[in-house]
Amino acid sequence: MYLGIDLGGTGIKIGMVDESGNIIYSSSCPTRANDGYKVIAEDMAKLIGETLKETNKEVKDIKSIGIGVPGCVDNAKGEVIYTANIDMLHAPLAVELKKYYDLPVYLANDADCAALGEYFALNDESVKNLIAITLGTGVGGGIIIDGKIFAGSNSVAGELGHMVIKSGGEKCGCGRCGCWEAYASATAIIRETKKAIEKNPDSLLAKNAKEEGEVNGKTAFDAAWAGCEVAKKVVDDYFNAIAEGLTNIVNIFQPQAIVIGGGVSRQGDKLLNPIKEHVYKYCYGTGLVDIAKISIAKLGNDAGIVGAAFLGK
Amino acid sequence: MYLGIDLGGTGIKIGMVDESGNIIYSSSCPTRANDGYKVIAEDMAKLIGETLKETNKEVKDIKSIGIGVPGCVDNAKGEVIYTANIDMLHAPLAVELKKYYDLPVYLANDADCAALGEYFALNDESVKNLIAITLGTGVGGGIIIDGKIFAGSNSVAGELGHMVIKSGGEKCGCGRCGCWEAYASATAIIRETKKAIEKNPDSLLAKNAKEEGEVNGKTAFDAAWAGCEVAKKVVDDYFNAIAEGLTNIVNIFQPQAIVIGGGVSRQGDKLLNPIKEHVYKYCYGTGLVDIAKISIAKLGNDAGIVGAAFLGK
Repeated sequence: MYLGIDLGGTGIKIGMVDESGNIIYSSSCPTRANDGYKVIAEDMAKLIGETLKETNKEVKDIKSIGIGVPGCVDNAKGEVIYTANIDMLHAPLAVELKKYYDLPVYLANDADCAALGEYFALNDESVKNLIAITLGTGVGGGIIIDGKIFAGSNSVAGELGHMVIKSGGEKCGCGRCGCWEAYASATAIIRETKKAIEKNPDSLLAKNAKEEGEVNGKTAFDAAWAGCEVAKKVVDDYFNAIAEGLTNIVNIFQPQAIVIGGGVSRQGDKLLNPIKEHVYKYCYGTGLVDIAKISIAKLGNDAGIVGAAFLGK
Repeated sequence: MYLGIDLGGTGIKIGMVDESGNIIYSSSCPTRANDGYKVIAEDMAKLIGETLKETNKEVKDIKSIGIGVPGCVDNAKGEVIYTANIDMLHAPLAVELKKYYDLPVYLANDADCAALGEYFALNDESVKNLIAITLGTGVGGGIIIDGKIFAGSNSVAGELGHMVIKSGGEKCGCGRCGCWEAYASATAIIRETKKAIEKNPDSLLAKNAKEEGEVNGKTAFDAAWAGCEVAKKVVDDYFNAIAEGLTNIVNIFQPQAIVIGGGVSRQGDKLLNPIKEHVYKYCYGTGLVDIAKISIAKLGNDAGIVGAAFLGK
C-alpha cells in the first residue's frame, strides 16, 4: 500500500492506493495555508492516522508516502522550495512529516504527480514517455520520461502552460504575454466567450449566457453544439490554440502518448477529434514514424493522489 | 579513438576523435546524394580507410563509428528512416557500413550529435541536462538529458525550431505558421532586414546593404553596432524572438545549460546579454532555484563530428 497526499491551496486530500493504482480509501481536511509547514505536516499526520485506522492498516503495511505540492520542491532535501498559495519557503515538509511516521516521504510538483498517475492509469507497456496536460483555470503540464517524472535540473520543469505560442499576445499571470495558458485554459475560453457575447448580443450564445446568468467554461461549447455560429468560432479558435501547443509538444518531445485532463477534457471526442487532426497534420514525422496517441485523461481529480502515492513505486 | 561522420547534403565529413574530444584528423568528400545508401556507405568506408592510413591507426584502435544524419534514424535497426536532402528512405546505412568495418556503428540526428558534442565540450560535471540551439539557415535543436541524447520515442524529438511562438505568424518551411525558426533563424533576420531597408531607403542600413551589394545575416548587426536606429530595431526584434523561444525552453526543460551555436552566435556577448536579461526576467523560478546558464557554443562546425564520434562513448 502507498499513501498519496495532494496538498492544495484550500484542502489536503489523502488516499491509500494499492499496487494496481486503486484508491481504496480517501479523506481530506482544510489547508491551514497561512500557518507554516509544521501545521501542514501535523494535519497530514492526523489524516494518515485516521486513514490507517479506517482501513485497519498499520505503518508497516505502507511502503511510502508521497506528497504533491502546488509549487517547486527539492525532493532530495525533503523541502518545499516555494508554493504560490501556501505560506512555505524552503520548508522541510517531508523531514517534518517523517517525525510522525518513519516512512520514506517523497515530494513532487502536483502537476507532475498527476502526470505520473495518468501514466500508471494508461497501463500501456509501449508507453514510456508521456506528456500530461491539464486544461483548467490554468494549463498544467507534467512530463514523464522513461516512466519517471522529468522535473529538470531544479524541479521546476514542465511549465508547459507557460510556453509562449503567440508572442506579444494576451497577458499571462506569469508576466509573459501570449502563453499557451492565456489561450488554452478554461479562463481563456471564458474571456473569449464574453468578448463574443459583447460583439454579438443577438446570438444564441448571448441568449444562453443571459438565461444562465453567467459565463463559464461550458457556455461556448453548449451553444456551439446547439448550432450557434458565433460560439462555434470561439470554440474553433480555442481548439486551434490547444492544438498549436500540443503540436509544439509533439515536435519537442515526440512522446508515445499525450493525455488531456481538466474540466475542458469532459468535451471528449468533440475536443479530441479536431485537435488530433491539427496535430497530425502539422507535426513532424507524420507518415514516417509513429506519432503520439492523444487521449483523455482517465483519473480526473484522483490523478494527483495516485501519482503522489506512486512516487515511491 | 572514435570515428565521427557528419553526413550533409553536399559533403561527408569524417573526424578521428580522441577520448578528450580532440579531432586529431579530419577529411571529407562530396555527398553523392541521389545514388542511394550503398554508395553513401561505400564513400564513408573509403574515408575511414584513408583516415586510418593517414593516422597510422588500425581498426582495433577504433572503439566505434558514429554517423550524424540530417533527418531521422532508427539506431536500433541501424537504419536511416528519412532525410530531406539525400535520397534515403528506410535505408540500412549502419548495417551496410558494418560490412566494410566490423565495428559498432551508431546513428543519430545531426543536430542531436552537435548537442552531444557541445555537452562534452562544456566539460562541466554539474551539467547533466543541456539544450543546444543552432541559429543558422534554420533553427536546430538538440536535447541532452542525463548526459545522453533525448530523441523521444521515434528519434524525431528536439525539433525546437518548429515550436510555434507566434501562432498565425510567418509561414515556416515545415508547413506551420509562426515557428521559432521563422523568427530566430538567419533567414528570418535577412527577411526583416530587407523589409526594413525597403521602408527606410535613407537609413545607414540601406546604404550599407547597397554598398555591399547584398543583404546577409550580418547586415543588420553591422549597421546596428554602427548606430543605425532602423537596424537596431531589426536586431532588437530578432533578439526578442530568440529570447521568447529560449524562455519557453527554460520553462519546459529547466536544463542546467543552454548553448547557442550557428553563424548568429558569432555576435557573442552582444547577443547573449540582452537574451539573458529577457530569459531570466520572464522564465519560471528566477530567484528561487538555479536557472540555466546560457553560453555560446564552443565547437562550431566541429560539434557534429565530435558528437557523432561520442555516440559510442
